Amino acid sequence: MTVRVGVLGATGAVGQRLIQLIDPHPDFELTAVTASESSAGKSYREAAKWRVEAPIPDDVAEMTVDATTPEAVPEDVDLVFSSLPSSVGAEVEPAFCRAGYIVSSNSSNGRLDPDIPLTIPEVNADHLDLIEIQRDERGWDGALLKNPNCSTITMVPPLAALDDAFGLTDVRVSTLQAVSGAGYSGVTSMEIIDNAIPHIGGEEQKMETESRKLLGTFDGAEVDRHGMDVAASCNRIATLDGHLENVWADTADDVTVAAAEDAMEAATGIDLPSSPERLIRVFEEPDRPQPRLDRNIENGMGVAVGGFRETTDGVQFNCLAHNTMRGAAGASVLNGELLLEDGYL
Amino acid sequence: MTVRVGVLGATGAVGQRLIQLIDPHPDFELTAVTASESSAGKSYREAAKWRVEAPIPDDVAEMTVDATTPEAVPEDVDLVFSSLPSSVGAEVEPAFCRAGYIVSSNSSNGRLDPDIPLTIPEVNADHLDLIEIQRDERGWDGALLKNPNCSTITMVPPLAALDDAFGLTDVRVSTLQAVSGAGYSGVTSMEIIDNAIPHIGGEEQKMETESRKLLGTFDGAEVDRHGMDVAASCNRIATLDGHLENVWADTADDVTVAAAEDAMEAATGIDLPSSPERLIRVFEEPDRPQPRLDRNIENGMGVAVGGFRETTDGVQFNCLAHNTMRGAAGASVLNGELLLEDGYL
Amino acid sequence: MTVRVGVLGATGAVGQRLIQLIDPHPDFELTAVTASESSAGKSYREAAKWRVEAPIPDDVAEMTVDATTPEAVPEDVDLVFSSLPSSVGAEVEPAFCRAGYIVSSNSSNGRLDPDIPLTIPEVNADHLDLIEIQRDERGWDGALLKNPNCSTITMVPPLAALDDAFGLTDVRVSTLQAVSGAGYSGVTSMEIIDNAIPHIGGEEQKMETESRKLLGTFDGAEVDRHGMDVAASCNRIATLDGHLENVWADTADDVTVAAAEDAMEAATGIDLPSSPERLIRVFEEPDRPQPRLDRNIENGMGVAVGGFRETTDGVQFNCLAHNTMRGAAGASVLNGELLLEDGYL
Amino acid sequence: MTVRVGVLGATGAVGQRLIQLIDPHPDFELTAVTASESSAGKSYREAAKWRVEAPIPDDVAEMTVDATTPEAVPEDVDLVFSSLPSSVGAEVEPAFCRAGYIVSSNSSNGRLDPDIPLTIPEVNADHLDLIEIQRDERGWDGALLKNPNCSTITMVPPLAALDDAFGLTDVRVSTLQAVSGAGYSGVTSMEIIDNAIPHIGGEEQKMETESRKLLGTFDGAEVDRHGMDVAASCNRIATLDGHLENVWADTADDVTVAAAEDAMEAATGIDLPSSPERLIRVFEEPDRPQPRLDRNIENGMGVAVGGFRETTDGVQFNCLAHNTMRGAAGASVLNGELLLEDGYL
Repeated sequence: MTVRVGVLGATGAVGQRLIQLIDPHPDFELTAVTASESSAGKSYREAAKWRVEAPIPDDVAEMTVDATTPEAVPEDVDLVFSSLPSSVGAEVEPAFCRAGYIVSSNSSNGRLDPDIPLTIPEVNADHLDLIEIQRDERGWDGALLKNPNCSTITMVPPLAALDDAFGLTDVRVSTLQAVSGAGYSGVTSMEIIDNAIPHIGGEEQKMETESRKLLGTFDGAEVDRHGMDVAASCNRIATLDGHLENVWADTADDVTVAAAEDAMEAATGIDLPSSPERLIRVFEEPDRPQPRLDRNIENGMGVAVGGFRETTDGVQFNCLAHNTMRGAAGASVLNGELLLEDGYL
Repeated sequence: MTVRVGVLGATGAVGQRLIQLIDPHPDFELTAVTASESSAGKSYREAAKWRVEAPIPDDVAEMTVDATTPEAVPEDVDLVFSSLPSSVGAEVEPAFCRAGYIVSSNSSNGRLDPDIPLTIPEVNADHLDLIEIQRDERGWDGALLKNPNCSTITMVPPLAALDDAFGLTDVRVSTLQAVSGAGYSGVTSMEIIDNAIPHIGGEEQKMETESRKLLGTFDGAEVDRHGMDVAASCNRIATLDGHLENVWADTADDVTVAAAEDAMEAATGIDLPSSPERLIRVFEEPDRPQPRLDRNIENGMGVAVGGFRETTDGVQFNCLAHNTMRGAAGASVLNGELLLEDGYL
Repeated sequence: MTVRVGVLGATGAVGQRLIQLIDPHPDFELTAVTASESSAGKSYREAAKWRVEAPIPDDVAEMTVDATTPEAVPEDVDLVFSSLPSSVGAEVEPAFCRAGYIVSSNSSNGRLDPDIPLTIPEVNADHLDLIEIQRDERGWDGALLKNPNCSTITMVPPLAALDDAFGLTDVRVSTLQAVSGAGYSGVTSMEIIDNAIPHIGGEEQKMETESRKLLGTFDGAEVDRHGMDVAASCNRIATLDGHLENVWADTADDVTVAAAEDAMEAATGIDLPSSPERLIRVFEEPDRPQPRLDRNIENGMGVAVGGFRETTDGVQFNCLAHNTMRGAAGASVLNGELLLEDGYL
Repeated sequence: MTVRVGVLGATGAVGQRLIQLIDPHPDFELTAVTASESSAGKSYREAAKWRVEAPIPDDVAEMTVDATTPEAVPEDVDLVFSSLPSSVGAEVEPAFCRAGYIVSSNSSNGRLDPDIPLTIPEVNADHLDLIEIQRDERGWDGALLKNPNCSTITMVPPLAALDDAFGLTDVRVSTLQAVSGAGYSGVTSMEIIDNAIPHIGGEEQKMETESRKLLGTFDGAEVDRHGMDVAASCNRIATLDGHLENVWADTADDVTVAAAEDAMEAATGIDLPSSPERLIRVFEEPDRPQPRLDRNIENGMGVAVGGFRETTDGVQFNCLAHNTMRGAAGASVLNGELLLEDGYL
């Protein structure tokens, strides 16, 4: 069975990555692309300033761009991927859900709402059934599913592995984030050449709260957030893709470097079409992972870790993932696959 | 009184900065420059591939380079600054001390030796008198004084302010370090363009141990290291100068952002010719300090801090200093000034 | 005598450099700063996102921003510097001239108009008297004076020296331009990290036409453009400041490397307060000038050249100037000084 | 038939690319890898600091590294690829040729020797038969074939297309070259961040002479170099891979932009296993080709051109190729394929 899908905000940086992933997808057929009012009616080729290194798929290039409203999108679309600015997403996504569409969204709005599932399929696929609560409470025929922020996604699979094995109590994380995480024009060249910016608005809060929801427990009625104490410090640096993070994880049980590495290497989770073969790759070389060398492992869907050291109360390590693949477009596609696997489509 | 000084390893990156600082210095007169055997006998202009943006001082350019041995350096030199590779420093510096020279060294060898003072004048000038112990034990006429590693220097003045006011218990620090910290050829362009390297050999250990010695207590006989737990994670990024660091400082007493900022702004310490007017500058803008914008405050001798947030057990903040000025050459010069102030010259 | 001056478009990248130059200027007193309607009424500190490394001058920070109209600017202002987008400049500058203001403009509109002088004071100060023609034709009490594009300014002083000595016939020039030339947000980080862009809209045409007007002959009535054939190719690269250019200059008379270098070193021109001591500095090192090392020579007002080689029909060489100083803000200030020197103020 | 091949200098930057291309090659079987004396006897994995983004092929990783002498390489190797420093190549390559090996070399030594063919198979495959002269004169059983310098290779296919159609008279070329062209450690980060270097030792001469040999005429006895006048200006910039070049080509016959583009699009040449499907790709977008976006076209074996403009005496355009693929390792492999096709193996 092929699912007919649309992409909301298809001309943006993450939108372009979504197109790239959906076009060859075995289960999804792209039938609608939307953008702002001013692009509606144009061909996708005209409307998108295409910046992905591979060329625009020919058939997508000729698609006509729709406005980003439920009325403008064909009714027989089953699933829409959303990568809208959060202020737009906050208005548009509920409208699509009311109109019966299922929305897999990368936008930050609503991620912490108690009845909106926030999932990384390999970590907390069971949270998906929050959709039942959501539909009851909101009276939607459709549904809204979120993936986390790109910097959160990078650290949560390794943290989940540690939590399962040793129990997390405190997390400190410092990020070195790529400019693509801010969108195509988000960071000017004058800001970042020979420089770093020790602040990304709202990012620290996202990492601190989303991680606790992701590692929380769903009892069928609500998600009880994990009780660990998380503090983040977020930096932008002059890399194109790939968020690198330094993590200190304090654990309830004793942990060694070897045990931590074993726990991460053993992490698997659900098997979906876009899942990496190996969720977490452990590097033994002390200077890896590095953004340019390692961001593309597992087609950009893996998480790379390394630099393990024991600390007084746990371990410290580094992790890396491709922020627009595993951290955004790929995360949404994976969530779409989870919706299909679990019978929501 | 003018002190006659020499620079050991004068052609390297830090050596060039030393030349730049000593040439116009009110109390120091540069009378000897040394380099490796192969450069001995050449003019400094020939021997040094000068890379500082300001031109070589004319008089220094014409000086003849000596070999790096006590015999090659004029006897009437009172003080030598050393910025040698640590393996060379470990051999050469004791030889100079035995021969009666006082050495202010930036090299990493010996920094943790119990009888070698490791000082940041504004923080622990009182440790200088370890020299008495050192002379007793080693039978030297000269003396050896060390400044810490560049990444340690960046965080210690703010940490000292917090420790005085609230008592430090735990420190976690993640660094974003400039390529100049590795010397002129230390980081290749292919390693760092569109990349970051989450490992700098030995740097984490230096930050963890040197900081505890610096904040330790000297009772006239030995330095009792501070009992705080420090864990560091060190990264190289594509900036030319200026180490930026994300710090979590847990404190024994309660601390607020305002109180932490006040403590740092009030930090002063000893007043020496190269001291900054204000030791620590607190930025209120959340995205400051930034390496390119703020590394030159106070002629590169200040420390900039910002991004304060309260955490469960203390505060987190960012700090920045110019790694080859405050963090290396300027640190050695300041230590030289301290030696003069305290009557060792 | 102090001239009261205003800056139109004072919050932009070049506007900020203008503020920095005018604030300490011996002959100019800054009495008005303007920006877009939305900033009018705010303090300059509020309106400008200040990005120059030195802090905002305190007195300027508290000035109130005016709208960019002749009515909004105090009547007793004698001279306004303009650094507006060309579409805005094309409307606003004539209005100021009609209202009696003398305008020294960096904006590109009107640079090729036959009755508007386009000057680099050291090169063609005599063109200034086109103002007489301009006033006759346009009935203005004020006057409009232009400086050239930043990439044109970089090559024209060395070309003028060659032209005077050997006669230019053909020029080919390839540029490596800094991102600041496009304004603060003109080049995104995703465009330029690990990349170069071989196109800057309209820049090639500006270099080709402006250079011929600058080296043209003014006979009291009109400027006869130089007959040389100029072809340019413009590239954006990942440097912050400093345009580097590779030039091939074919000459009517025979030229040697030594003669070309001598001609450039001898270049002087008019002596104004902001003039560099030496207009053109010749480097003998084959790998100089370089943007980061040499853009600040003569406080950013000099032109550096090097890499001379004889070709079949002339010489090739490289030149470099600071694009927002010598190439923009400093150029306008110098033109303002020329207006004062020549009695227009 | 499978040809047994070796790689001389296999641990260097180009050597690693050679391994990457030869390992999956349909006609070549890698049976020997050599490096300096100090690496001989180690496994390739140990000896090479592997920096290609794809992992080391498993079977190659376990090969034992030989010394770079004819004696150390198995006799049944038919063809060796050489990517040695030119001073080493000048000694070692003739020794291999004397010992009967056929050498396809990327090293710069000997490229201009009258009896050594210098070929780009799509451009001047007919020059290969210089090998007969070479064997006669030198008494070698083996043979030595060279590919040009990476910056030469980038411009020569488009120049050849123009020369065939319109006759070239003068060429001016300015390069923006990637750091990988200097080898892994050739350009330090401190040299190139926020900077460009307008000089690459010997590169201008290579472009000027090699291009004239490549476009020269082979009459069965010697290559008569093309009479065009070529002048180059070479710059290093902060890109990882991909040399971008601005070219002015003056032609004997009249040329239009459309005719020049047509000539380039029609260029084909010989069809070998590693040949690109389309040798030259013409971009209509004025800001293409760009290094990061376009260096990988045709698996790094294509040449991209764009930015055409008519000039007084010809056309100007930009060209780009991947310097370590089309410009080095891929060029040598292609030459190896030509040797096979023409019966030398």
